[in-house]
Parts: sequence; C-alpha cells; structure tokens
Amino acid sequence: MVKKKIIFRNVGLYSSLKNKDITKIANHIYEILNNLGVNVYIPNNLKLKNLEKEIKSVSTTKIINSCDLIIAIGGDGTLISSARSFGYKGLPILGVNLGSLGFLTDIPPENLTTSLIEIIKGEFSEDQRFFLESSVNKSKKKYIALNEVVIHSGQIAQMFEYELFLNDVFVYRQKADGIIVSTPTGSTAYSLSGNGPIIHPDVETINLLPMFPHSLNARPLIVNRDSEIKIIVKSSNKNNTKLSMDSHNSVNLKQGDEIKINKSSPALRLIHPKEHNFYETSRNKLGWSLGLSTTK
Amino acid sequence: MVKKKIIFRNVGLYSSLKNKDITKIANHIYEILNNLGVNVYIPNNLKLKNLEKEIKSVSTTKIINSCDLIIAIGGDGTLISSARSFGYKGLPILGVNLGSLGFLTDIPPENLTTSLIEIIKGEFSEDQRFFLESSVNKSKKKYIALNEVVIHSGQIAQMFEYELFLNDVFVYRQKADGIIVSTPTGSTAYSLSGNGPIIHPDVETINLLPMFPHSLNARPLIVNRDSEIKIIVKSSNKNNTKLSMDSHNSVNLKQGDEIKINKSSPALRLIHPKEHNFYETSRNKLGWSLGLSTTK
Amino acid sequence: MVKKKIIFRNVGLYSSLKNKDITKIANHIYEILNNLGVNVYIPNNLKLKNLEKEIKSVSTTKIINSCDLIIAIGGDGTLISSARSFGYKGLPILGVNLGSLGFLTDIPPENLTTSLIEIIKGEFSEDQRFFLESSVNKSKKKYIALNEVVIHSGQIAQMFEYELFLNDVFVYRQKADGIIVSTPTGSTAYSLSGNGPIIHPDVETINLLPMFPHSLNARPLIVNRDSEIKIIVKSSNKNNTKLSMDSHNSVNLKQGDEIKINKSSPALRLIHPKEHNFYETSRNKLGWSLGLSTTK
Amino acid sequence: MVKKKIIFRNVGLYSSLKNKDITKIANHIYEILNNLGVNVYIPNNLKLKNLEKEIKSVSTTKIINSCDLIIAIGGDGTLISSARSFGYKGLPILGVNLGSLGFLTDIPPENLTTSLIEIIKGEFSEDQRFFLESSVNKSKKKYIALNEVVIHSGQIAQMFEYELFLNDVFVYRQKADGIIVSTPTGSTAYSLSGNGPIIHPDVETINLLPMFPHSLNARPLIVNRDSEIKIIVKSSNKNNTKLSMDSHNSVNLKQGDEIKINKSSPALRLIHPKEHNFYETSRNKLGWSLGLSTTK
Repeated sequence: MVKKKIIFRNVGLYSSLKNKDITKIANHIYEILNNLGVNVYIPNNLKLKNLEKEIKSVSTTKIINSCDLIIAIGGDGTLISSARSFGYKGLPILGVNLGSLGFLTDIPPENLTTSLIEIIKGEFSEDQRFFLESSVNKSKKKYIALNEVVIHSGQIAQMFEYELFLNDVFVYRQKADGIIVSTPTGSTAYSLSGNGPIIHPDVETINLLPMFPHSLNARPLIVNRDSEIKIIVKSSNKNNTKLSMDSHNSVNLKQGDEIKINKSSPALRLIHPKEHNFYETSRNKLGWSLGLSTTK
Repeated sequence: MVKKKIIFRNVGLYSSLKNKDITKIANHIYEILNNLGVNVYIPNNLKLKNLEKEIKSVSTTKIINSCDLIIAIGGDGTLISSARSFGYKGLPILGVNLGSLGFLTDIPPENLTTSLIEIIKGEFSEDQRFFLESSVNKSKKKYIALNEVVIHSGQIAQMFEYELFLNDVFVYRQKADGIIVSTPTGSTAYSLSGNGPIIHPDVETINLLPMFPHSLNARPLIVNRDSEIKIIVKSSNKNNTKLSMDSHNSVNLKQGDEIKINKSSPALRLIHPKEHNFYETSRNKLGWSLGLSTTK
Repeated sequence: MVKKKIIFRNVGLYSSLKNKDITKIANHIYEILNNLGVNVYIPNNLKLKNLEKEIKSVSTTKIINSCDLIIAIGGDGTLISSARSFGYKGLPILGVNLGSLGFLTDIPPENLTTSLIEIIKGEFSEDQRFFLESSVNKSKKKYIALNEVVIHSGQIAQMFEYELFLNDVFVYRQKADGIIVSTPTGSTAYSLSGNGPIIHPDVETINLLPMFPHSLNARPLIVNRDSEIKIIVKSSNKNNTKLSMDSHNSVNLKQGDEIKINKSSPALRLIHPKEHNFYETSRNKLGWSLGLSTTK
Repeated sequence: MVKKKIIFRNVGLYSSLKNKDITKIANHIYEILNNLGVNVYIPNNLKLKNLEKEIKSVSTTKIINSCDLIIAIGGDGTLISSARSFGYKGLPILGVNLGSLGFLTDIPPENLTTSLIEIIKGEFSEDQRFFLESSVNKSKKKYIALNEVVIHSGQIAQMFEYELFLNDVFVYRQKADGIIVSTPTGSTAYSLSGNGPIIHPDVETINLLPMFPHSLNARPLIVNRDSEIKIIVKSSNKNNTKLSMDSHNSVNLKQGDEIKINKSSPALRLIHPKEHNFYETSRNKLGWSLGLSTTK
C-alpha cells in the first residue's frame, strides 16, 4: 500500500461565529490534524475553550505568513470572511459546515474525518474564484468582494440615478434602488434573491443586476469578467448612496462619484473534496429535485 | 343652450414642490377659477409669489373645512401627498401635471382651461381609491398609505425574518429584505419595480410582494382587499426594521412587533377628465405601444 | 347526542383516469356512502371492476338530472374535467385525491371515511369558483374554462400578433407566443409556470399574462372579473393560431378573428372539508415552508 | 493620400425575403461594389428583377466556393439564415438592414455607401459568434443553430419531462413546456422573451432556460460554452416532442431520445462597421434610454 504524503503542513482554523457547535467541530479538526502531525494555528479572535494544550492563538498576519491552508468552520458567510482575509492573500480555503450544506462550505460534520485526511494528503479538487476590486474616484484604496458589490441609495424604496459604462462605452442611465455587480460565486447569493441567473463558477463573467429599476426594460446584463465597469452617481438622495462589499463593509458615496469595478488579480483557491460537483450542491440547496407534486 | 352650473365652489390648490412651473400653473388655475367665480384657497406652505390680490394663504385645517375640491399641481408624488392630507379627510382630488402625464395626475398644462372648466361644472369621472391603514401592536395610532406599506430590514442587502398571517391564518415564514403590501393604485408604483403585476384600480385587492426573498418559491400573492393582514417581525438585525408608508413616513420596529394592515374606510375620491381611461395612461406611461422593432 | 341529517342523498362518482388506485378508492367511497344509505351513481366511462351488486353505470345526462353531489377521484386534472361536465351544470363537486394533495382535491385517502361522512351530513365549507366563457366572432357557441383560456400561435417559439381590448377600450397590440387569460383558480396552474401571481380564489379578478412577449415592457395585467375581454388576431402564421380551454379542448383561429372572453354566470360549487384553507394548501404545494437552508 | 486596398474581391448577396425594398437596396449595393471593381454573386433564389447586365445568379455551392464575403439584406432573421448557409462554411457575413436596426444587421440604408466602401477596403470590426451543434442518439447528423436550440413538447401549454446532464453530471429532472439552450447571440432573441438575461456576445457561455417550468425553483442556468449538454426525453405526450433550431428547422423526438448539444467548431465571422458597439445597439433596440417619465 502506498502511503500518501501530507501536502498541507500548517493549517489555520477560522470562524466568524462563536458557539458550541463551532468549538466542537474545531476540537475535532484539531484532533485529526494533530494525529497527522499537522501544525494547527488559531486566530486571536477564535478562543476555543476546550483547546488547551500547546495551542497558542496567533495574529492574522502570523497565520498568513505561516499557513498553507485555512479551514473555515461555519456557513457560507464565514467562508466569505475567511476568503476576504486569507484567500485574497493567496491561502487556499476549505469550508466545513455545521450540518446544512453551503454553496461554498461542502464538508458536512459526518464526513469530517475521512474528507479531511484525504484533502490533507492531497486528494482534493480546487476551484479558482475571482474577486471584484472597487475603487472610488482617483483613490488608490481598493475594496474587495467575493460575492458582489452593491451600489445603492442607502435606503429601501428610495431611488438614486446612475450611469453605467463598460470599457468606457456608455451603456445606460438608470433610476433604481441600486445595482448588484456579482461574480459567478455571488450568483447563488444576493443576486439570486433579485431573480438573477445561476452562473457556474467556472464561467468567466460578471453579472449586472438593477434592483427595483424605475423602468420596465431593465434586464440582467452578463459581461466578460475582464470588463472595466464604471458607475457614476448622477443624483443621490440626501447623499446616502453607498458602495457595499459582500454585505461586510461599505463606503459612503456622493453625487458625481465615479466607481470603478474590475476583476482583481489574486483569485481565491477554494478546496473541495474530490467528488464535489456544483450541480449536486445546487440541486440540494435550491430544491431542484422538488417539482409541484401533482397527479394530473 | 343650457348653461351648466358650478359644482365645486371652493377649491384648494396644493403642491409639495416649489418652483417656477408650479407657480405659473397655479396662477393660471387661479385665473380660470376666479373667472368662474370660484373661491380659491392656498395652504400656508405654498406661497405663490405672483399671486397678489385678495388671496390669503390658509391653514390645512381651514382648507379641509372650507373646500369641496383640491387641485394637486405636480407629479404623482404631489398627488399622493395631497391624498394623504386632504383626500383621506374626504376631499375629492384632481391632479394637474407639469407636462409629463402621471398615473394619477392626468390634466396636462395644454388642456388646462378646457378640462378645468368642464370639471368645475360637473363634467368629470370619479374613481374610488382605497387607503391602507397600519398599526403596530396594540397602539391605536393608524398610519395611512395610498400606494403601499413596506416592511423592511432598514438596510439594503440585509434580511429580516417575518411571519405572514391573513385573517389569522398562517401563510408563511420568510427571510427577505422586506415585503411590499400595495393597493391597486400602488401596483404601478414601487411594486411594479419589484416585478409585481399591474392591477386595474377598480379591482378590490391587496398585493403582497416579497423583496429579495431568501427562497426561490416566493411569488406575488394577491388577496381580497377586505383581508386582515398581520405581519410579525421574527428577527430584526440591529433593530433597524421599519414600517414605511408611501416612502413618505416611517416607523421603527423591533423583534416581536406585530403589524396589522387593512383597508381604511375613508376612500380617496380621485377626479379625472371625463374621457380618462386607465389603459391609455398605462400605454403611454409604460411604453406599451413600443415593441422591439424587428424586421424578421 | 344529536344525529345530523344526510344532506346529499344522490352522489355521482367520477374520474378521468382508470387505474387500480382509483378503483380501490371508488370501492371505499361506495361502501361509506352505501352505509349511510346514499344512492351512488357511476358514469358509463368509469367501469369499476370490483363494484358488482346493484350499481348500474349511467349516462352523464342521468347523473346531471339525478345527483346532488359529484365526487371527483384523482388529481386536479380530474376535478377540472368534472367541473366542466357537471359543475358547470350546477352540481357541487368534492375532490378526493390519490395521496398527493391538489389545489382543488383536498381529501387524502387516509381521511376519507371521517371527512366524507361529515360532508355528506352537511359539515363542509364551500367555494364559488367562476368559469370563463369564450366565443369566436358572432358564433353563439360558448367554450368554458375553469383555469384558463390560452390564445396562442399554435407552435412554440412562433409569434402571432393580437390586439387586446377591455370593455371595448384598446389596451395594447402585441407580438407574443400567446396570452393566458386565467381565473384565480387558474392562478396556481399554467399561469404560475409563466411567472404569474398567486391569486386567492375569492378575489374577483381575471389575470392576463402574455407568453414570451416580443417586448420588454409586458407585465401581468389583473382586471375586474366583470371585464369584457376582446382579443383580435392581427396576424397568424400559417393560420395555426388556437384558442385553448384548460388544455382540454381547442379551436382553430384565423387572422381577423375576434375572441370574446368573460365570466360565465353559472359558478362551480367546490366542496371542502370544514377545516380547509387555501394558504395551507399553497404552503404544502408550493413548498413555502422551505427557505434556502443557510448557516450564514 | 494613401489609397486603401480592396480586401473583399468576391461578394455574395443574400436575402431570405423578396420585396421591393430588398431589390432596391440590392441594386444599390451592386452599384457600389461594381464601382469598386468587386465581383458580385447572387444566389438562385434571389432573382433581383432590375439587375440586368452581366450578373448571373449562381448556386449556393458556387457562392461558398467563390466568395470571400456575404452581404445579408434584411433583418436579423435573414442574417441568421445566411449564417446557417454561408457563415457556418467560414464566409464572413455583413448585415444591411431595411431601416430598423437589428442586433446583427447594423448598416442602415442611409449609411450604406460610406460604410460599405470602408468595409470592402478593410476598415471594419469583426465578432466571432459560435454555433450550437445538436445530435440525436447515436446519429452522426448534426443540426446547427446560431441563436438557440429549443427542445419542447410540440404543443403550447403541454408539458414534457426531461433530464439535464452537463459533462455527464446529472443536473435536474424537470417538467416544462420546453427548454431553451441559447448562445450569447441568442440572448437577445427568443430567450429574452422568456425573461433570460442579456449576454454580451464575447462572453463564452451557453444559457439554459426552462419554458413554463412546473416548479417554482427553476432559474436560468449559465454554463461554460465548452460544456457538453445532454438532455434525455423522459416522457413525451403523444410523441410530439421536438428539437428546434433557430425556429428554422425541427426534428421529431420520442421518449428516451438523448440529445447532445455543444459548441460547434466553425464560428461565424460577423462583420460590423468600425464604430459598432453592442451596448449602443442594445440601448436602441431595447429602449434602455427610456425610463418611466415621472415628476415625483
């Protein structure tokens, strides 16, 4: 029998949540990794009560410098947090969910031991997921998003007006509550609630979806992911207009502001168990197996 | 030749806007009404600069007590304001727009003299438009809306969770950015931007439309306008949840709050020129005459 | 103890399907009704093999003349068939389904005995469901539909052009694959697949829904059920255009044909168990209890 | 002054229509090309009455062998015909419309002389548009489509059931009137009527859009254009199920048939005037400049 070699030698754990289930799974993961001789790092904000021993929690910077894999424990929200902090810096990320399958977190607790050992030993599949990078006016500050950038009026049922340019070509001027600019990864998140299409993660596109547009002929517009997107705020009620990234952080905008959005160059390396496939996840998450039960 | 009699003897002017066009039209209306021997009342907030002479601006209460018709000058927004202040008190309302036809304001400036004289002399058609009345928990305070009541998370791209009951029967529990509860009058307003159906004003219904629902099987639900609607806030992120009426005023909600919504008993008497019809307005406003121009 | 009296003394069974399950349930119903002393009638087309004894199958006319209740056994399709044949003639209809709940057939086999006895003894709730009545040009022939009338090009992905009038007022001219004209009963049938709203059965409306319209500003239009609907076929590719009723029967149309559609005066009396409510059925049939399962 | 050289020396004219306007434009084109010393070929089926002189109409094969450019005169439908006959064989195609701009035919009559001379002399932009290739079961016969392949029940308001596989991975089983499989080129055609997204022509995707699906959780699904699509007909009412290509030709299907769809290797070379851009065309064709005119 061939013994497979350990591929990931330094693994950081991460969660944006704090509860018993997380702690329990984190302990379990620690035990598995420890048995394999893998070093485990835990960020300061995640104080796992039952993890005593030699584990010292460390800073984000330390993790970025020391680890070669991050395990995000929780739901898709946690995975997105970890992607923004660690994935964007080049660390591959693996998601372990708490029971209910996510689009991004695909190891359920009951498969933990088997899946984890395989992955640590190099038996996994890997997705490249691109981030969106936004900037306002001439500022060099870049904001990143894995799911979507939303530019909106700051208030529900309140329109603002904007102009959209793609590669410096004028597309349209529109009044709406906002516009969602999403990656394929984001196509199963907020964009889907707004009736956007589902886009396979390997399709190289960006989707532009107006929110409550003040016209009947607005439609989702799907463009090449290498497009340079420019949105100009033409009018902004009470200057509440905002640029929001993954619903995690946001920036205030004012009339005349020019937002540029494009694909960022570092991509997220998303790790899955070998047998993972997007369509099975979709079927489970979206209930595609369920028709209207009829006896016509 | 039969001389028709004056039907409306005391007319109040109203606008929520202040600009030259409004003043110009108000002057014009004043002149027409004056020639007919009709008394004209102007609310305090509408100081028409060029209207000198004997006109004294009066309080809202004075107008409510003295007038038998309100003329709202502006767009649909102005008409809704006037409906909330005067229409709800029983005064019939006539809308004069500034050039671009509204769904509610249907006398364009160029038809002003003819249409106005006819209407003052009793040649008009009349619509009954019902209001929605909302209250929170046991409070006796009622909030009214002509277009729609929106219950929402207070923040775009932020869900809250609610339960919907109709006539005390449980309908569903849902996560969404919000829910729009609209009258047929409101079906061509915010609800339409959210992909709701167009409902003829004489149909006796209320439309319930989830906003960015976190499920794929949510659909607009159209119920009898005599339904007692109850919505319970089950979870409320940071207690930002809000109850909003016609985008004019709003009330803060917190977890556990119970909102009741139903048809109010006073209805708006909306006055139109005799030849008015809803479908022609829709055709013009919604561009129904425009297909995709093709030469297939 | 008060003994309730038998309300329905002569009951006709009906199904549009033929299989073992139907036969089994029909036998069971026969037994229950027989024990109550109720007369059971079976139409010629429904030869229940195991029903021997004194039962003679009879003609539709005989059933119409003799019965005071029809029990439709099967799915919603069967109930619609029975409504078209018997309900339209004034006979109340009760639906017994084969296991999976329908929107119209709401007694599941496991509740059969209890529910049936209660209903026969007068413990039931009753809905009035209106039919649509269509006619072509000056012909006196009327076609009825409980769910929907569809006017279509006769071929998928093939447009025809039509004009829509409501109460003789022009609404729009449109190119589309077709148009669905549906009752509230039909709002949970074909119209729902076309993204139409769900309309509670007691709302007095008709819904007009274009199918694959050749314009971006088409929307569902909901009108008063007393509206006189007129559709004129303006162009008809190869004269394949058709008028279709409940997907049961259809009529050929040609260019220039004028179709009139309105509410018919006889309404269907639909019988339910006492505790029936539309929202519970919707929740079950449409999976409203199911959100996207997330752990965000 | 530099004289630019003629790039296209042998040009075939084409139209699927026959009328005075076509003839007039064809004559005009002939004159322009003749003046430039370009050879003009006309297919047998296009007998231009006023074109006398030395022009002999020729067979499709002759055109394919002799020409280096096809000019399609008419609307998008004509251009699609020419793409299927000539473009698929590698000939670049230029569309001249009859007045109303098409998505594919972008030289209006009034710009004809200038645009044409420039293009013939090599001043043009070029799009690569891929075709879809379908086959049924093991047959080697390939059917091509530029816009879309539709698999449908053969009858409006009649479902069939199918299973969808992508790269041999099961995606879902569904009941629907049909499914549209479209290219980005087709995203502004039939798919758009079915509420599909607009996809820029340079995005490398295929869009799968269920038609009147019998479930509430169906959504457009956008996949990589290199996906191998397999659809299996699971049930077929009366064996009317059909495979239809660009609404031009169709093939009968029966239960159990397996349809394979993928990108074909020859792509259409679509020629535009230099200044062409997709978003300007979209804005004009879709009325994106038009909001709801309001004065709120």
